[in-house]
Amino acid sequence: MYREKIKVLDCTIRDGGLINNYQFSDDFVKAVYGALCEASVDIVEIGKKLCVSEDYSRDKFGKWNFCDEDDIKRVVESHECENPPLLSVMYDVGRVDISALLPADQSVVGMVRTACYVPDIDKGLDLVKRTKDQGYETTINIMAASAAIETELIEALQQVNETPEVDYLYLVDSFGAYYSEQVTDYLELYKQHAPNKELGFHAHNNQQLGFSNTQQAIIDGVNLLDATINGIGRGAGNCNLELLLNFLKNPKFDVRYVYKVIQEHFVPLREEIEWGFNDIYGISGHLNQHPREAMKQRANAEIQDNCYDFLLKATAEVP
Amino acid sequence: MYREKIKVLDCTIRDGGLINNYQFSDDFVKAVYGALCEASVDIVEIGKKLCVSEDYSRDKFGKWNFCDEDDIKRVVESHECENPPLLSVMYDVGRVDISALLPADQSVVGMVRTACYVPDIDKGLDLVKRTKDQGYETTINIMAASAAIETELIEALQQVNETPEVDYLYLVDSFGAYYSEQVTDYLELYKQHAPNKELGFHAHNNQQLGFSNTQQAIIDGVNLLDATINGIGRGAGNCNLELLLNFLKNPKFDVRYVYKVIQEHFVPLREEIEWGFNDIYGISGHLNQHPREAMKQRANAEIQDNCYDFLLKATAEVP
Repeated sequence: MYREKIKVLDCTIRDGGLINNYQFSDDFVKAVYGALCEASVDIVEIGKKLCVSEDYSRDKFGKWNFCDEDDIKRVVESHECENPPLLSVMYDVGRVDISALLPADQSVVGMVRTACYVPDIDKGLDLVKRTKDQGYETTINIMAASAAIETELIEALQQVNETPEVDYLYLVDSFGAYYSEQVTDYLELYKQHAPNKELGFHAHNNQQLGFSNTQQAIIDGVNLLDATINGIGRGAGNCNLELLLNFLKNPKFDVRYVYKVIQEHFVPLREEIEWGFNDIYGISGHLNQHPREAMKQRANAEIQDNCYDFLLKATAEVP
Repeated sequence: MYREKIKVLDCTIRDGGLINNYQFSDDFVKAVYGALCEASVDIVEIGKKLCVSEDYSRDKFGKWNFCDEDDIKRVVESHECENPPLLSVMYDVGRVDISALLPADQSVVGMVRTACYVPDIDKGLDLVKRTKDQGYETTINIMAASAAIETELIEALQQVNETPEVDYLYLVDSFGAYYSEQVTDYLELYKQHAPNKELGFHAHNNQQLGFSNTQQAIIDGVNLLDATINGIGRGAGNCNLELLLNFLKNPKFDVRYVYKVIQEHFVPLREEIEWGFNDIYGISGHLNQHPREAMKQRANAEIQDNCYDFLLKATAEVP
């Protein structure tokens, strides 16, 4: 028997874009969107909504880093859909121009998710309030909770709890560091200090636990679940959407369309860019470290598989 | 705090040999054995101990399908080890010559594991009794429990419970079909109907759940855990030993040697043979199907990534 309250949020384009600087072709994004419509995924996150700047030029970064209304519309209009998914975009604290955000009733987007680290919680909640004022559904995604000092994390959770504009509070396993027991422990902490909030969970697959930790989150009562097609995402990637839909018993989901877009679009893409579990991400996840060093090593063909060297370096004592 | 009773059994050569007909070089097997000694893994399964026959000739199959005493000795003697692991071999019902089994006190092997399907439980238990008579530690590994009829499985469990010669009873997820909740459910069944037996667990990684299901088995009280270096094994492979040792907190384990042998021997091997999760094994696992069709498709380069086609075929209604 399925739990009707569970919603699945696909962030294929948004998290996948972190690998290739959002250089997906329009055809690819349309194919992904079409598959997600047919599969009846509840929410589709189509990209980030950041400001153009010198560092973030349109040349260097693809359009899904900026999510202009017209670009999104072109995708949405490419596929007729009886019950279209809610569309979401992601905000990063410090890199957005909220004054440019259209009121929700004039936009194809219906949800804005705000990502921030614990020390930026005030800035994050300010963005949440202002996006809620514009009529959007909102989330706050507290990143790298596994590396936060617990007293500061608790204070942030209490602030979230007292902010009625937050619709969903996310536990995010940024470093792919959690075992199932830690998913449970952190969710207990979240429930204790933010009892008013509905919870979301975003996994990473560093230790081959992206999917299983998402199952644990379900068992622990989380009702908003992130996943990506084929697990695409930065570093070791995310919870695989197709595995998750197989697991969930809600008859509205139709996983066939996800496997179809994998066969037709993701198999060729895997020749161009890399994502998913490997030994080096497994080590960085276990050590609860930011994946940047692991990604650096994976990007160097000569040493990309030198997991032993990576382990020694990652665990070397600081002199 | 770690659970001292937990033992780890590495079956890298035995399960990995199913991919390449046991054609590992002596250097490779010695490197694996040396790494497992240094990592303090408790039990090392070095191969199967089957009879030579027309179908199973020494030419077609490598020596680790037969595990002659001299072959094993050469490996063991290649590496000095203060606390050498217990050595095990696997018996398949119907394919062994028990009259050729040396008494344990004349052999380097200390454990014989007997694998059988539910309908062959009498034959399996007969082998267990006779290996125990020869002085070996014993296990019975009931394969494909997820596809057995429950009443027959229960009867088999009751027989195992009444056989004092069985040291360990294994829950084996042959098809990689279990979610964590099913690991728990089946272990409950095993405990209920075979309460006298210490339990073991052998996972497969079809749905990226090999490692997480092994964690679930630990939570549910299992104390003998199978794993393989880099997850090598038939089809989607097994629980990765290095991830498992990272998870277990027993200070005797030293995972560095496992990563060293991966870097030096498994990275090159991955160029020659394939194992591990992919979309097609994910589907066969979810459908609780024997991996043979999935392996057949993976062996055909032209269609190996056609997961959508595989799904349609695997779920087609029988006319």
